[in-house]
Amino acid sequence: MIKQRFFLLSMVFAIFSCSTNSSKNDIYVKDIVELNEAITAANPGDEIIMANGKWEDVEIKFRAKGTKEKPIVLRAETNGEVTIEGLSYLKFGGEYLTVEGLYFKNGFSPSNAVIDFKIGHKDKPDEISNNCKVSNCVIEDFNKPKRDDSDLWVQFWGRHNELSNCYIAGKTNRGPTVRVSIAGIESINNYHQIVNNHFGPRPVKGGPSGETIQLGDSYTSMSPSHTYVANNLFEECNGEVEVISSKTNFNVFKNNVFFKSEGSLVTRHGNYVTVDGNYFIGDGVNENYGGIRIINTGHWVVNNYFYGLKGKSFRSPLAVMNGIPKSPLNRYNQVTDVVVAYNTYVNCSSPWQFGVGTNIAQADVLPPSEIRSARAIRTTVANNIIYNENGLESIVVENDKADGVMFKNNIVDNQGVAFKNFDEGIVEAPLEIRALSENVFIPVGIPNDFEAYNGFDFDTIESDLLGVSRKDSNSIGAVLGVDVTNPNILDKSKYGTSWFSNEVEAKDPIIHVVEKAGQLQAMLNQAASGDIIALADGVFTIDESLVINKSITIQSQENAKAMLVFSGASKTPLFSLQPYGKLTVNNLSLKGNKANYAFASLKKDMSNHFGLTVLNSEISDFDYVLKAYKESFAERVTFENTAISDCENGIELSEETNDKGDYNTEYLTINNCNFNAVNQNVVDYYRGGYDESTIGGNLLVSNSTFTNCGGKEKNKRLLNHNGIVNVELVGNTFENNDVQFVSILWGAKNNTESDNKVLNSGEIRTEENLVMKLMY
Amino acid sequence: MIKQRFFLLSMVFAIFSCSTNSSKNDIYVKDIVELNEAITAANPGDEIIMANGKWEDVEIKFRAKGTKEKPIVLRAETNGEVTIEGLSYLKFGGEYLTVEGLYFKNGFSPSNAVIDFKIGHKDKPDEISNNCKVSNCVIEDFNKPKRDDSDLWVQFWGRHNELSNCYIAGKTNRGPTVRVSIAGIESINNYHQIVNNHFGPRPVKGGPSGETIQLGDSYTSMSPSHTYVANNLFEECNGEVEVISSKTNFNVFKNNVFFKSEGSLVTRHGNYVTVDGNYFIGDGVNENYGGIRIINTGHWVVNNYFYGLKGKSFRSPLAVMNGIPKSPLNRYNQVTDVVVAYNTYVNCSSPWQFGVGTNIAQADVLPPSEIRSARAIRTTVANNIIYNENGLESIVVENDKADGVMFKNNIVDNQGVAFKNFDEGIVEAPLEIRALSENVFIPVGIPNDFEAYNGFDFDTIESDLLGVSRKDSNSIGAVLGVDVTNPNILDKSKYGTSWFSNEVEAKDPIIHVVEKAGQLQAMLNQAASGDIIALADGVFTIDESLVINKSITIQSQENAKAMLVFSGASKTPLFSLQPYGKLTVNNLSLKGNKANYAFASLKKDMSNHFGLTVLNSEISDFDYVLKAYKESFAERVTFENTAISDCENGIELSEETNDKGDYNTEYLTINNCNFNAVNQNVVDYYRGGYDESTIGGNLLVSNSTFTNCGGKEKNKRLLNHNGIVNVELVGNTFENNDVQFVSILWGAKNNTESDNKVLNSGEIRTEENLVMKLMY
Repeated sequence: MIKQRFFLLSMVFAIFSCSTNSSKNDIYVKDIVELNEAITAANPGDEIIMANGKWEDVEIKFRAKGTKEKPIVLRAETNGEVTIEGLSYLKFGGEYLTVEGLYFKNGFSPSNAVIDFKIGHKDKPDEISNNCKVSNCVIEDFNKPKRDDSDLWVQFWGRHNELSNCYIAGKTNRGPTVRVSIAGIESINNYHQIVNNHFGPRPVKGGPSGETIQLGDSYTSMSPSHTYVANNLFEECNGEVEVISSKTNFNVFKNNVFFKSEGSLVTRHGNYVTVDGNYFIGDGVNENYGGIRIINTGHWVVNNYFYGLKGKSFRSPLAVMNGIPKSPLNRYNQVTDVVVAYNTYVNCSSPWQFGVGTNIAQADVLPPSEIRSARAIRTTVANNIIYNENGLESIVVENDKADGVMFKNNIVDNQGVAFKNFDEGIVEAPLEIRALSENVFIPVGIPNDFEAYNGFDFDTIESDLLGVSRKDSNSIGAVLGVDVTNPNILDKSKYGTSWFSNEVEAKDPIIHVVEKAGQLQAMLNQAASGDIIALADGVFTIDESLVINKSITIQSQENAKAMLVFSGASKTPLFSLQPYGKLTVNNLSLKGNKANYAFASLKKDMSNHFGLTVLNSEISDFDYVLKAYKESFAERVTFENTAISDCENGIELSEETNDKGDYNTEYLTINNCNFNAVNQNVVDYYRGGYDESTIGGNLLVSNSTFTNCGGKEKNKRLLNHNGIVNVELVGNTFENNDVQFVSILWGAKNNTESDNKVLNSGEIRTEENLVMKLMY
Repeated sequence: MIKQRFFLLSMVFAIFSCSTNSSKNDIYVKDIVELNEAITAANPGDEIIMANGKWEDVEIKFRAKGTKEKPIVLRAETNGEVTIEGLSYLKFGGEYLTVEGLYFKNGFSPSNAVIDFKIGHKDKPDEISNNCKVSNCVIEDFNKPKRDDSDLWVQFWGRHNELSNCYIAGKTNRGPTVRVSIAGIESINNYHQIVNNHFGPRPVKGGPSGETIQLGDSYTSMSPSHTYVANNLFEECNGEVEVISSKTNFNVFKNNVFFKSEGSLVTRHGNYVTVDGNYFIGDGVNENYGGIRIINTGHWVVNNYFYGLKGKSFRSPLAVMNGIPKSPLNRYNQVTDVVVAYNTYVNCSSPWQFGVGTNIAQADVLPPSEIRSARAIRTTVANNIIYNENGLESIVVENDKADGVMFKNNIVDNQGVAFKNFDEGIVEAPLEIRALSENVFIPVGIPNDFEAYNGFDFDTIESDLLGVSRKDSNSIGAVLGVDVTNPNILDKSKYGTSWFSNEVEAKDPIIHVVEKAGQLQAMLNQAASGDIIALADGVFTIDESLVINKSITIQSQENAKAMLVFSGASKTPLFSLQPYGKLTVNNLSLKGNKANYAFASLKKDMSNHFGLTVLNSEISDFDYVLKAYKESFAERVTFENTAISDCENGIELSEETNDKGDYNTEYLTINNCNFNAVNQNVVDYYRGGYDESTIGGNLLVSNSTFTNCGGKEKNKRLLNHNGIVNVELVGNTFENNDVQFVSILWGAKNNTESDNKVLNSGEIRTEENLVMKLMY
């Protein structure tokens, strides 16, 4: 074997020696050994072709040197038919290298990145790549098993690297999906390209560090990056409040489409960013879809189009933050020298907010170095158009005074509703609206004599949203003229790979009837995601946890009532909610043995989300109704029309106690339920850590009754929701609960109560400012 | 008169209307009215010629538009013979304007700048200039009367403006001599040129805000500036610890000569500065001459030459500071990604210091946001040469560990004295030294096989100190090869104007004999600066203060002893030390009436420094020996071989109580003196405010005796020197002084005592860390 290898290597060297001027060479490889040998031997112009099939546990170090004219290409035999699975990664270490057609799935990286533009070393300098490219690849659900284990799916280093025409979706664990790292002189002025990609859904992470793209970090935020992010589709990128977090200088965001993404493009650190010609598309309902949030100096926000965005405050279409005077490096610099020009806003609830994040009122609970009191200065808002189907009370929302902002030559159709016009910088005019597509409308009818304001360097805004030159005829708003065709921004064939589509055909669920307890798990295994299992009338005695690892509904057959009696071991659940396990329980009775649980996540390796909806059911005699373990996450947990009684513990979603802003579910909804004789942890939902930009956790408790509950609760509170930002208690009755407080609400955040009856149950208290641990 | 004006204006318009395409027009103007009219009427290509003579109280607003091909020029009829005096300034408001040949002296600006590249307005946008130029002009001693009244002599705004071939010297009041302001998008990416100037002596200011050039400020330190500072001579620019304070990004400092300047080129804020091919020349003695002090990220320090610099710590030839973790915007960012390569150091005491400014030990008296504990990282020191005539104990001084620094391929001739070699990154080799001039020596004899380290992007270092390309043959150190001619860096004809020289012919002092008191003031008026007044034997009764406003020595004639008895009013001084008044008193007896003073500055309008040296004299029966008022400053105050007795107060230099780092004298020296029966303020010398970069105040008290002093001192300290950084008490005797402390020394700073006898006089205490008011 050794001899053979030596012979092979000699061959390779022979080829190498005499082929420097030869033309392209195709090298077909079937496994990692052959791949490594081919890489070692590769010459400029070579193509290494990976055989179709599953490549498991492959750590690819693409260490080679191509040339500008003759890159070295590593590609799938057939696009998408080379799957990279298991514990695998791809690292670049060289120049002019291209990778195409790979499909990363069913696995995760054993390193800190799935694709990395360097090969790192501890004992010698890293091998940093330049002029390398990943194209036409997919990374899907390639999650580390533990949510708190951080990684990146694509990490940029070096200069002039590219991520293009890829589809990337489904990251649930901690860490941005894509990061451009620029620590070190080798990676500044990088001019990386992130173009033509389709960033598919990234589910809500439930805490920070869920960005889709992060450019640098605060520690390198003084460095010039010049990263170019263009022509990408961001679809449902909901990971956290920042879809893109720009933390370096001179980045350009051009012609991207943000579609129903629950976050914003944020100039978090760094300066002189250009945000030009992007689409931010909402649905007119969801308040979580964001726009552009501005911090720091010198940004240009021009030619952008905003539609149907209902976000406010941090999630406003334009959210200009207050800074901290003399801010620490990792906090909030003042906004200065920003230009917002030639944008169009159609049917947005709160197009422009200034002084966002002001927290002067919290001076008692925060140190001075946390107080955002420095308002935007030397900032120009000009030549924009706002059209509102329904007039707004304010066009500009001043969380703090916008007195450092110059408004010039903006036009608004506010349906005649009066607003503050900022020294006539915002002019009312009746406009009409012209539909280019379902989501793209252009307001027309700007008065002929209305001229654009010519601000300093405005002549550098050369063309409009659609690329039409502004030189010959200029007018305000994102789009010049009225004779414009549909830009087809949601045609997914324009983004991502040539071979992968995330569009799923709708199909009707199949109803599987189960009549005996012994059949249930088998049927769960067999059913497809989305199917329904209908239980016959009668009692089902279950002695082992049922595994839920897909979307499934379990309900009683029509006109029947099934009861599941769980006799399983103590501390085990009737329903084990595993990754991808989204369970709906409808019209069932669930009964435990006082020591076991109704529902629980896995204790570890919750690499993907669970979900739980309980409707029209009765739950009794469990130790826990729901137990969510640390690092498990559900986007939604819902109980409706359900009676919960005689349980030691209720709904526990409070395991994220490291106070880093994480929590266990995004939405906990309890409506029209009846809790009786639940001793403790009746509702226990927790988010810790002072973090102004984690704006999640949503608790709704409505039209429900709580009686004889909470008696064993040590902190004497019936409903525990410490640090949850959005809490609403409405129309409930609390009676004979032996507690001191029904709830302590966080007044400064969005915590409210109304129409509750409290009888012999302590009180509902509101505290304006909660003292929390500083995260930064 | 009105008619006449109208006629003239009509004429002007007529010329304007028909001359847009005409060739150059010379317009000769004799006063400000004509000048203003000429400016109003000026066309591209015009030259406005100011008549020779004194132009007093002229506020010139040069508001016009030239073109690149046809600038509008405003010039002196004869270079240097147009003097701008009184309350005057020059402001540019336009494009392509040039000013040449003016001489600013005998006055000051009533505005915030002498020359300003904008015309500011409160109620409308400022008129900011681009492509304007000041050349061949002089600004000399154009000081505001009050030291605390801040101004600038040249303030840049806009883009592509130039200060070239000017001579600028003598600023004493607060404020940098030249500032490039970049607040606002109109002034970023400015590419201003500050070239070929001669920055003559700027005296020590005695506190901060005495920079010769300041580029931006901390609030705009994120902005790109690209200012080019090249081929300037900085001669004795001693204003403060920073000769140049770079506070923006991408500035370039090239081929400047820093000659005997008591300060450094400091990258105070901002990043990515290039310091290439500069000379830093000391005298082998003075420890105040600095080099390059580094803060922040990404600087390149290459091809520089350092000679005879004895500075340490902040004033080291290379001082790399510790940063504050997550520093506030206006404090100290960590040093990262700095390259120090191809520099040559000849006979410097402390060529490289790291961890400068570390103050971890002061954690008890400072808040965490003031603690500089973040060491330099990702920093490369390579290809440098160090030659030491006398071997040094350390080549690298580690105030804190230099563990984030990579040393590569540096060579040192340390005369065989052992030093730490940092993983062989610093190699000992015997070198020889070749003189190119009095101050420029090149070490030769690098071993032939010693290769330069090829770091990342080192190929961008294209040429050496003398402009020789490094492409063909590269070697370490600032200068390639050995066959090199004298660069004549101190040939002053290469810098500054075509018409002004600051070289003064040495002349012997004239001795004027005065025999009667009544002649003394007349003779003081008549004598030239530098002359000597010799008093005859006997008593001179003086009843009015003698005015000292030049350099003068007053002494007894040889073999005689003159006594001056001062009968002037209470609180008036025998010698009134006025601006420029530098008095030496030698071998005199001075006697007061217990209510008046021996020496005092003016109470206000000390627009230039005073100085005082008292030798071999006796002083008695005054209320104050010396009283320095607020905003007065002496570089040196010296008492030697002098007896001071029976005075209510001694030497008071403690009026700068605003705690902004200011003080009243740089050096207070008391040697071999005898103080007896001075009741209070025996020695009272004050600097307030915590400011790590104000490193002045120097008190030496040596070989002196203090008896029966300080009895009325309220704070019970004999010698008061709160906040003074350098204090040395040596060989003194303190006997029978009714105080609690002779002195409280500041241990963390350079406060020392030795060989003092303390008898019945309290104690000399050392406190390591002084609690001071934070300045920032």
